[in-house]
Amino acid sequence: MDIIKVSAHSRSTAVAGAIAGIVRQHKHAEVQAIGAGAVNQAIKATAIARGYLELDGINICCIPFFTEIQIEDQERTAIKLVVEPR
Amino acid sequence: MDIIKVSAHSRSTAVAGAIAGIVRQHKHAEVQAIGAGAVNQAIKATAIARGYLELDGINICCIPFFTEIQIEDQERTAIKLVVEPR
Repeated sequence: MDIIKVSAHSRSTAVAGAIAGIVRQHKHAEVQAIGAGAVNQAIKATAIARGYLELDGINICCIPFFTEIQIEDQERTAIKLVVEPR
Repeated sequence: MDIIKVSAHSRSTAVAGAIAGIVRQHKHAEVQAIGAGAVNQAIKATAIARGYLELDGINICCIPFFTEIQIEDQERTAIKLVVEPR
């Protein structure tokens, strides 16, 4: 399954739509964000996706993890949010 | 129960300790953050608190909400994270 990569410039409603679509299909979505602006957009998107999925009777919660990723040979710490029905 | 208020300058390990303590006692904690820097610290703290609580066999997840709050007569949109055992 694809990871939803979020930047500080991502539109939170677009990310929310992606989260809702993947959770509906797979009952599990993963969102990755690096830096405060990106993490903020990811959390806002999760709050919006909650509203979308409540209409389908799905009550989501998110579980945050630290994860190390390689970008241009440099190790960066990202936040991964696992989004699943409760 | 008190809401844990997080700023961009909060130490994420200190916030994590507060979350873990309140979840152990009440099975429910609420974290409030305004702005990207604060939301980022709040999510990092939740990820760290997960590690603390796993040692007690408690598996937490968080549920993000938008919430309107008044600061100096101005309405601001905050993010509220509800942290509970899964």
